[in-house]
Amino acid sequence: MSGTVRLFVEGDLAADAAVAVTADQAHYLGRVMRLGAGDQLLVFNGRDGEWRAVVDALDKRGGRLTARRQSRPQSAEPDPADQPWLAFAPIKKIGTDFIAQKATELGAARLLPVITANTQTNRVRCDRLRATALEAAEQCGRLSLPDVLEPAALGQLALDWPKDRRLFLLDETGVQTGRARFLAGAVAEHPGPCGFLVGPEGGFIDGELDRLARLPFVTPVTLGPRILRAETACLAALAGWQTLAGDGR
Amino acid sequence: MSGTVRLFVEGDLAADAAVAVTADQAHYLGRVMRLGAGDQLLVFNGRDGEWRAVVDALDKRGGRLTARRQSRPQSAEPDPADQPWLAFAPIKKIGTDFIAQKATELGAARLLPVITANTQTNRVRCDRLRATALEAAEQCGRLSLPDVLEPAALGQLALDWPKDRRLFLLDETGVQTGRARFLAGAVAEHPGPCGFLVGPEGGFIDGELDRLARLPFVTPVTLGPRILRAETACLAALAGWQTLAGDGR
Repeated sequence: MSGTVRLFVEGDLAADAAVAVTADQAHYLGRVMRLGAGDQLLVFNGRDGEWRAVVDALDKRGGRLTARRQSRPQSAEPDPADQPWLAFAPIKKIGTDFIAQKATELGAARLLPVITANTQTNRVRCDRLRATALEAAEQCGRLSLPDVLEPAALGQLALDWPKDRRLFLLDETGVQTGRARFLAGAVAEHPGPCGFLVGPEGGFIDGELDRLARLPFVTPVTLGPRILRAETACLAALAGWQTLAGDGR
Repeated sequence: MSGTVRLFVEGDLAADAAVAVTADQAHYLGRVMRLGAGDQLLVFNGRDGEWRAVVDALDKRGGRLTARRQSRPQSAEPDPADQPWLAFAPIKKIGTDFIAQKATELGAARLLPVITANTQTNRVRCDRLRATALEAAEQCGRLSLPDVLEPAALGQLALDWPKDRRLFLLDETGVQTGRARFLAGAVAEHPGPCGFLVGPEGGFIDGELDRLARLPFVTPVTLGPRILRAETACLAALAGWQTLAGDGR
């Protein structure tokens, strides 16, 4: 149903369930997408799969839809617990919107802004990241939204990281030192849940890299000999993982 | 040598070779990067590898460097003939600069703008694409520049495409039709030189897809169940290929 409007909603979805939409969503449906009473769309809430729904009413204060029948079960998408996380240092110039959008398209289950020594900016508008991720999820056909966490210092990220989720550390210095492995080998050795950690434009400082690389759940990886920009590394890592081990294979 | 200035130059590189730089390059080296006589940098020309060089003189009209010794041989990089090509429909909103930059970082050997039925814009500033690709090559440590071809109509692209270079057609409708294969399987079957063809935001029209899919050198592929934006598909395809079969493995 390419071209069909897809909307993330909060309420439960079931046959003939009434679904409330916010004033912003009603504006988007009515004014931007020109939908009116009786028109069809797709809705999802991250729990009940995707449903065909029909517009009952839209006005300035909000609106109401009715869910009709399920178009895809929630199980059509991999369990978010099995999808990769992305921890990344915010980038001032291109902003984090770009990363949030692309990471959502590439199936990231969680976005974790992380503040490192060389991070250019501490200002991360998480509300905006969430809105960007939500819009990307609507457009790319996901059945779930990525979690967007509040920014954490690198040390805190390492402390909080679940020990049973392998953390692939993008380490561009690791090619020279021999510490980093290619992604395919690292994923073959650690085929379970994982995440990626991508440093800022200026890279990690040596102390950060050394401390991270010593953690038992961390594997330094490289994507090849070229020095990727931070945002390119985020996307390339997720795309590579989906191709090797995710739903792109 | 992270942080060291890298410059693409036209002239031949050899020990003690004098290397001319343009007025723009002299401005960049002198005014932006604050280099002066005696300062070191890295230079490459796409033929002779990468060389350490020293600044002799810079002024408004240009400048001169002297190559000292080779830091990497040209053979440190895969033969461009073995690297993927990227054919893509120009995108109005984000522009093609983004694609040129990321594709260069991800090792594309050739960029081929292609005009399809749904392509939003015929205006492609190839001089600007080349400048973007050159800058990306300088920054990411490549020893070569991607070729940037003039825009071609889709039919012409298909006619001109070398028959011994597999063309992986990004076909998001191919999941439903069963026509498209996952990238890993397609690359395993066709491990030689390849290229990717990514359609415009509105997708290929059916006639285009059918004609392309019937060509003997074309393999329709999918990157997974999510509907990627055109520029995301470009990057994900190249990143996936480097991870599976290129220098990211």
